[in-house]
Amino acid sequence: MKILIIGGNGTIGKKVAASLSQKHQTIIASRTKGDVLVDITDSNSIKKMFEKTGNVDAVVCIAGAVKWAPFNDLSEEDFYIGIQSKMMGQVNLTRIGRHYINTGGSISLTTGILADDPVNMTTGAALVNGGLNSFVKAAAMEIGNSIRVNAVSPGLVEDSVSKFGNLFPGHNPVAMNKVVNGYLKSVEGKLSGEVIRIY
Amino acid sequence: MKILIIGGNGTIGKKVAASLSQKHQTIIASRTKGDVLVDITDSNSIKKMFEKTGNVDAVVCIAGAVKWAPFNDLSEEDFYIGIQSKMMGQVNLTRIGRHYINTGGSISLTTGILADDPVNMTTGAALVNGGLNSFVKAAAMEIGNSIRVNAVSPGLVEDSVSKFGNLFPGHNPVAMNKVVNGYLKSVEGKLSGEVIRIY
Repeated sequence: MKILIIGGNGTIGKKVAASLSQKHQTIIASRTKGDVLVDITDSNSIKKMFEKTGNVDAVVCIAGAVKWAPFNDLSEEDFYIGIQSKMMGQVNLTRIGRHYINTGGSISLTTGILADDPVNMTTGAALVNGGLNSFVKAAAMEIGNSIRVNAVSPGLVEDSVSKFGNLFPGHNPVAMNKVVNGYLKSVEGKLSGEVIRIY
Repeated sequence: MKILIIGGNGTIGKKVAASLSQKHQTIIASRTKGDVLVDITDSNSIKKMFEKTGNVDAVVCIAGAVKWAPFNDLSEEDFYIGIQSKMMGQVNLTRIGRHYINTGGSISLTTGILADDPVNMTTGAALVNGGLNSFVKAAAMEIGNSIRVNAVSPGLVEDSVSKFGNLFPGHNPVAMNKVVNGYLKSVEGKLSGEVIRIY
């Protein structure tokens, strides 16, 4: 398969890319470095990316920013950071990407445990992740061309514990290979409209 | 209790308002008619509404637009109709409303079955409803002042069957009194951070 991985240099993305590269042709997209550059907050940038890559068999997105702050400090604009990046960035990848995904291909988005099990300062992340979890279920029914749409929802991953673990009291870190397997299940399996929770 | 009901003239809202008015002082807010006017897509309008009502014990919102259309026809702007209205409208009601809700009061938002069980043409509604379902869980943990935050998620309601029933094949219409009870549970009960599903 020819697989486009957006966010393929990140903590999770680089592990997913390393795994998928063993059996598939991968293209790494990112905001700052990679085979192709993309800013997922900008639909035109998404279109340009797909014009460069041409048709692919699978799109995997492990990218998108969300503002973390106490609810009582978050402004309307702060909520829109996550809406424009992680949420509508991935909706737009699906909307635009379907024109560049081969019949029977797939798109795998990334949400996260905060939709189900939020911690302090994550109202913005919960909003975005929960929205996308429901979106994939609806979009999978309608996208057509036998394209599958899933979300992988990782918990706190082992490789983020040293950086963010203190923000997730009592959360059990998830092994990287289990998270990678969530993406493999979405890309190489036959599921569609599913939230693949790796908690 | 002094209860502000935004969308108190709608299909569900008028039944909720009629029920709550039996035991409580209710204020009906709406875009076009009511005790106070509000456009929930506009934060300034929300602020002005609360300045007029003064402090309340409960806020109930049964308002918010979402664009219905086939996924493959929805533009980025179409998704933002629901994001700005039903989604961020209700987030902003919570953000701004907390300054006007008495200690121990509550805010009850409205989502809907399409977050869990979408039908054709509802990717925009699924996104918005799913986001809010996760948002209330996160916001309830942080809002403080013993304020409770819940979402009521109605299925297709009986009073909408003649208008929208054909869009919900196989959905079992929900009796209006059951939906009203969802709001009573949120307002008069002690739940917080819950999605009260009335399916």
